Amino acid sequence: MRRLRRRGICARSPELDCNHRKDVPAISQIVATQSRAGEGAPFAFRLIATDGAARRGEIATAHGSVATPAFMAVGTQATVKGLSPDAVRATGADIVLANTYHLMLRPSAERIAELGGLHRFMSWPRAIITDSGGFQVMSLAPLREVADEGVTFRSHLDGATVKLSPERAVEVQSLLGSDIAMQLDECLALPAARSELERAMRLSLAWAERSKRAFETAPPQRALFGIVQGGDDAQLRRESARALVGIGFSGYAIGGLAVGEPQEVMLRTIEEVAPALPADRPRYLMGVGTPEDLVEAVARGMDMFDCVLPTRNGRHGLAFTRFGPINLKNARHAADPRPLDEASACPAARDFSRAYLHHLVKANEMLGAILLTTVNLAYYQELMAGMRAAIAAGTFADFSAAARAGWARGDIAPA
Amino acid sequence: MRRLRRRGICARSPELDCNHRKDVPAISQIVATQSRAGEGAPFAFRLIATDGAARRGEIATAHGSVATPAFMAVGTQATVKGLSPDAVRATGADIVLANTYHLMLRPSAERIAELGGLHRFMSWPRAIITDSGGFQVMSLAPLREVADEGVTFRSHLDGATVKLSPERAVEVQSLLGSDIAMQLDECLALPAARSELERAMRLSLAWAERSKRAFETAPPQRALFGIVQGGDDAQLRRESARALVGIGFSGYAIGGLAVGEPQEVMLRTIEEVAPALPADRPRYLMGVGTPEDLVEAVARGMDMFDCVLPTRNGRHGLAFTRFGPINLKNARHAADPRPLDEASACPAARDFSRAYLHHLVKANEMLGAILLTTVNLAYYQELMAGMRAAIAAGTFADFSAAARAGWARGDIAPA
Repeated sequence: MRRLRRRGICARSPELDCNHRKDVPAISQIVATQSRAGEGAPFAFRLIATDGAARRGEIATAHGSVATPAFMAVGTQATVKGLSPDAVRATGADIVLANTYHLMLRPSAERIAELGGLHRFMSWPRAIITDSGGFQVMSLAPLREVADEGVTFRSHLDGATVKLSPERAVEVQSLLGSDIAMQLDECLALPAARSELERAMRLSLAWAERSKRAFETAPPQRALFGIVQGGDDAQLRRESARALVGIGFSGYAIGGLAVGEPQEVMLRTIEEVAPALPADRPRYLMGVGTPEDLVEAVARGMDMFDCVLPTRNGRHGLAFTRFGPINLKNARHAADPRPLDEASACPAARDFSRAYLHHLVKANEMLGAILLTTVNLAYYQELMAGMRAAIAAGTFADFSAAARAGWARGDIAPA
Repeated sequence: MRRLRRRGICARSPELDCNHRKDVPAISQIVATQSRAGEGAPFAFRLIATDGAARRGEIATAHGSVATPAFMAVGTQATVKGLSPDAVRATGADIVLANTYHLMLRPSAERIAELGGLHRFMSWPRAIITDSGGFQVMSLAPLREVADEGVTFRSHLDGATVKLSPERAVEVQSLLGSDIAMQLDECLALPAARSELERAMRLSLAWAERSKRAFETAPPQRALFGIVQGGDDAQLRRESARALVGIGFSGYAIGGLAVGEPQEVMLRTIEEVAPALPADRPRYLMGVGTPEDLVEAVARGMDMFDCVLPTRNGRHGLAFTRFGPINLKNARHAADPRPLDEASACPAARDFSRAYLHHLVKANEMLGAILLTTVNLAYYQELMAGMRAAIAAGTFADFSAAARAGWARGDIAPA
């Protein structure tokens, strides 16, 4: 889960330029090319079934459909770390998330646009969502300054001064050619003072309006999502949601969660916000979470999720399974011939012993990270697919209880 | 290519024990199990065609056949770095090499035997060759002492004192269950004094005899290769080869090359040694080499090769192609939309732009190492397959000239 280092708000910056390079095609040319290249239907959301507050839906994009509830693997630098696009797809992914902040710094949005857009660049022909870059600016970039106009920061790569405004964030995402773009927002860590939460929420709302205006020149098959802010304050959250719905977006995200607060604060916030969002638009809970978080959030009406947990933890020797997390670094696996889960549909969970995975992790071999990333993404996708089927069948409560029972049982050592 | 740090020969060590653990099954039990588990024909070599000195052959093993000339990808720690077994197979590999030194230290040969042997451990059902461990002892282990009895060294992992004798090297490889085992030898870097070369050659011969005796208890489908030593001295090399043939092995390796000498010394040594080896046994040139080395060595009658170049260089941003090596770190690739080789049978060479590969390498993303390792192994395998077909067709000289012309042409920038 994502955590923010907080930082005081500093001096106002002058009008932000859009960092345009001189030697690239005009954005209108690029966008027209991408528009022609786009196949299939424009962005749309269809609600297929509900079970309590849980929703089974389908997002249509120019790059294929996304079954919801959906988990979106994180491909920060235009790659899900350690996996080829085919391997990502094989885990069951319909969509991946790429980070605007990282890509605008390296290799640059203009470079990716010249090369035909992000789908072609990373050889991922399916749907892509991009964040606005704001979250990483707040958490990674040194010397950032937030002003009404936008945020100014130094690149963590080369120290160059970079400016990001709501308009530039939309432009960058348009150059990348993602199917779903996010508005620029300001995300605070929790706990935070109400006055700070209110200020950041209102700034994010102002940026939402500007993002929407900037987005109206984007080709019709792309979508822009607004982001509800307001921290753990119910009144601020509701106000944010109402105002965003008034502006009108293709989908709505809840931001500013999974930033240090207890799970019950996160779930209560979802309960307060979700009913204020229109039923016919997808709802995205940003940066969440554990398998349990996902089940709880789906139960409260959320549709889309992204998180680095399955990929990052996979690289650090941790496997997510039906019976909870398993730390392959632990010496108890050193002689264990059993696979992680012989009943898994994922070959990486079935075809390698825990002893071998333990060996790979201890020996710091890339294949350990690759196999565990695969296992984890496959488990996350299996969990989402299970929830989708259960919602359609009206058995979500049973599914949820069974998943919970598996995690509670835990991993059992061989007899 | 492998390089040795040389080191003086030190005090004689006491009789070497075999480092047996007490809590594992006796080796006879393990070997019997592996023997029963072994499928297919026992080890055999069949010469199918010759073209000049170049040979097209087939090695039968209990784990499938190996078409020769064969390149054997290096899987040091029971994994070809960055690739799943399926991905290794997809490059065209019939056989991989694993390093006895690394595996005996971690997780230990006894542990791998308990888990059903190396094939099952690494989920690679095809042929495996293991080296004897001697080369890495000489190049990696601190505080090693070579004596007539064997070599004593400290583990580079935990500093533990470990002893490796010819008998223990055979035993370890038997525990691993490799299809082809190598005798323990002493490998010197070049240039070296003739007296040193002669001493090491005679020691290696004595170890060859002891290895053969130890091996005679191994199950019949496995094979042991002897290793010709003698450095760059033709007389020592011929004496070593004659004596090894007198002992009798399933195959013969030329060791002690690619250790710092010029290519012409290596090729002259092959020319001196190959005619002294029986035509009906495979010939393995250890630790070689570049694509050009492979073509030159095949032209001189060698059948098997292993080298870390395609895997290690792939991890460092270098691609081997029909048109020579391409360094993806170079900024000239940053905006190049072309794949490495649109005519390659390897998807990794066809489906990703040089710009994307450059980005992955610059961003230190695992996928860069994975894709370039795949590209390189696929190119090596394509080169071997091309040589095999050309030998069978009697057109090896043409093939060799065409390969050379491609490398000489080099990589051409887009118009």
